[in-house]
Amino acid sequence: MSLSRLFEPESIAVIGASADEGKIGYAAMDNIRSFDGRVYPVNPSTGELFGHRCYDAIDEVDDRVDLALSCVPRQVTPAVVEECGEADVGGVVVYAAGFSEHTEEGSELEAEIVATAREHDLAVLGPNTSGFINANDGVIASFVSDTDAVPAGNVAVVAQSGGINHVLMFMAENNRVGISKAIGLGNAADTDFAEVITYLDADDDTESILLHVEGTDDARALLETCRGVETPVSIYKVGREDVTDFAASHTGSMVGDYQLYEAGCAQYGVPMVDSCQELLDVGNAFASLPEPDGSNVALVTGQAGPGIAITDRLKRAGTTLPSLSERTCETIDDILPGLTYTSNPVDTGQPPDPAAYETLLGAIAEDEAVDILLVYQLYEERVEYPVDILEGLVEDTGVPAVFATTGPSDAVDDAVERFHSAGIPAFQSPERGAEAVNALATYAEMKTDSPTVTTAGSER
Amino acid sequence: MSLSRLFEPESIAVIGASADEGKIGYAAMDNIRSFDGRVYPVNPSTGELFGHRCYDAIDEVDDRVDLALSCVPRQVTPAVVEECGEADVGGVVVYAAGFSEHTEEGSELEAEIVATAREHDLAVLGPNTSGFINANDGVIASFVSDTDAVPAGNVAVVAQSGGINHVLMFMAENNRVGISKAIGLGNAADTDFAEVITYLDADDDTESILLHVEGTDDARALLETCRGVETPVSIYKVGREDVTDFAASHTGSMVGDYQLYEAGCAQYGVPMVDSCQELLDVGNAFASLPEPDGSNVALVTGQAGPGIAITDRLKRAGTTLPSLSERTCETIDDILPGLTYTSNPVDTGQPPDPAAYETLLGAIAEDEAVDILLVYQLYEERVEYPVDILEGLVEDTGVPAVFATTGPSDAVDDAVERFHSAGIPAFQSPERGAEAVNALATYAEMKTDSPTVTTAGSER
Repeated sequence: MSLSRLFEPESIAVIGASADEGKIGYAAMDNIRSFDGRVYPVNPSTGELFGHRCYDAIDEVDDRVDLALSCVPRQVTPAVVEECGEADVGGVVVYAAGFSEHTEEGSELEAEIVATAREHDLAVLGPNTSGFINANDGVIASFVSDTDAVPAGNVAVVAQSGGINHVLMFMAENNRVGISKAIGLGNAADTDFAEVITYLDADDDTESILLHVEGTDDARALLETCRGVETPVSIYKVGREDVTDFAASHTGSMVGDYQLYEAGCAQYGVPMVDSCQELLDVGNAFASLPEPDGSNVALVTGQAGPGIAITDRLKRAGTTLPSLSERTCETIDDILPGLTYTSNPVDTGQPPDPAAYETLLGAIAEDEAVDILLVYQLYEERVEYPVDILEGLVEDTGVPAVFATTGPSDAVDDAVERFHSAGIPAFQSPERGAEAVNALATYAEMKTDSPTVTTAGSER
Repeated sequence: MSLSRLFEPESIAVIGASADEGKIGYAAMDNIRSFDGRVYPVNPSTGELFGHRCYDAIDEVDDRVDLALSCVPRQVTPAVVEECGEADVGGVVVYAAGFSEHTEEGSELEAEIVATAREHDLAVLGPNTSGFINANDGVIASFVSDTDAVPAGNVAVVAQSGGINHVLMFMAENNRVGISKAIGLGNAADTDFAEVITYLDADDDTESILLHVEGTDDARALLETCRGVETPVSIYKVGREDVTDFAASHTGSMVGDYQLYEAGCAQYGVPMVDSCQELLDVGNAFASLPEPDGSNVALVTGQAGPGIAITDRLKRAGTTLPSLSERTCETIDDILPGLTYTSNPVDTGQPPDPAAYETLLGAIAEDEAVDILLVYQLYEERVEYPVDILEGLVEDTGVPAVFATTGPSDAVDDAVERFHSAGIPAFQSPERGAEAVNALATYAEMKTDSPTVTTAGSER
């Protein structure tokens, strides 16, 4: 079953559309105003909504409807899904809650929905989801407000929780990270992680896939899918501790599988992160940069303290900082004053003038031992950031470069924006830079160790 | 030896003051323009600097100089410290590097400085430090630019690295967290962690002390000091992995003592954090809130997904989420719709109207089982943040309350500012809120378990 009609609709029906501001059927209509395809509100005896003629039922719409947003209560949902199936709708988003996460009766309703969906080759997202957005096509199929400013781009988010999906969208907006699709799976009764990952892997708009996972019945299938796709997938797995009760009441998911994910991610080279911010940062790095050829990192820092904190983080994740070649060390010694640390990490002290800095960073990036470059530089008014230098270097060498800094927002925010425009992920803390690089290294290590990772025999 | 003259000077001499913009002696003069006490540049054959008469030597200044900023090269430093001692200066900041972190010769120079300092009862900060700021008194005794916008307040920073000291200052500025003193210890040859912590504990401007530690010779003394003081101390210990080479070249410190700190912090109830951002967040929480009477946390969340991520973090740190009383549960059931999770965590769904929300949060905060309240709420345009509710609740019950949210910066930044003005720490991610609460709980657990923590016999 293709998910294209669900996530890239040309026509949308809103079932249970409403003029009442307090209702989901209103929020759904309000949010798809940014969509420039065909829109069909469905609600008996409602004349017109948001300038669109309102239909009594989905089968009265004289058009091929790709996506239906189901804003009706749970009891009515199976019937709505059935009607959508009969009307050859491509996908239905079910916002209603109270299914398998709630009661036995809810589980039965959910099973009914899934059976209907499979019978009609209809993709159901949810139930118990706040929906999704497709930022490139202006589809805000979510009932949460204020996601219309999320920038379009090439990072895809797939969250088990609608709340986390929106946390990540807001963080993307604040960090100016472009999103392709941000999808809340909810109960994932029909459309699940594996299907969505496979769909996004084929999606031209998506270069990096981020997963928020509470718990799944099919951890192995999910991990195998991550291993099989071309697009880098990163995971924020919640549930290291026992949060089963709360999670089960949320999306009906069983947790307690943290160790399974930990082992699987290590085995398959899937970066695991530990917070929403880290997940977004890692997505930004994968989406912006060329894939590294290996996992060896060179760190260049203007200040020793942040450099040591970064080194600590890199080593903790098992990331290697290799020795640099004799030739590189000579270049460094030529350029840098005597007091600094010229091994890897390279402690430049206050960075040299731009021409010398370019020679220095170039020599390090071109060193055979180096696959990934990380540069940290505390903000100083008189010292330029190496935006053009790093942009040129990534283009010339294919070595991905990550920048990190800290300084007053009013000075640094603009610089971060310039880095992002130049395709260089830039982070406003030492530790965030380190974690983004750890993810690149984790991914590269597996890819380079096992070039044929899609075959089962290549496990190490 | 008192550190008051060093950190709260009424008169400052800048030794090696310079009109040359590239020199530290210029940056030092430039930075103390915000200081409204007496300023004495010292540099032979320089007539006037920044509107001040320039002196040939410190002993020519006809005033009691509290603080001298030594901007001279390392070889000259012992002589400058000697002159300061003879002139009855109270404290000297030594910016020069190249001492014990560098060579045997450097170690000898450093030993000479320490001997001189002790002989004259003179406090030396450094060498190899970028200095300190005292934000309440406008003393920017640092050669790094752009720290003049760091807001004054009651969080003190003590960093082994000048770079990390400035990272924390910039983060404080960006997060609108007020700083009392931010001190870079550098090599800590004379003035060390234990002395500075004791000084800050007695400082009326300081309500929370933050430490960045790379490595120390006297971990036990440092930890005993943390246990003995009244002001909460939190630690960011770097060096979980082997970063000894780099760290030794930086501040001459030996690392490899991470496990010692981990055990000591657990034993003494000193919160340990894992990044600069976390350290600042924890400082913010301690400085803003009353100390909790115990370590039991109630979590109220508007969205289950972020709530589960928070719960996971709390449990990982060993923080307890107790069951609520029958009476509290009844109040919750009265107010909340049926579908949500009414245990602790309490999942409100979209928060109820302000009056009901106040009743709900009040009942939970007043529950005997609850010592700390954490509220998470995803930004929604139509939903008010409980700024006044939480402010009133902390005042009425003495229970510290932490707020966390995520939303578009342009909407949320102002709200965070309103929370801060109301004395409620507010964080823009689920995980940051959780870690701040973990620190409060860690601290409270030890304080309440061992009310006489200053005696050696109270260890558990």
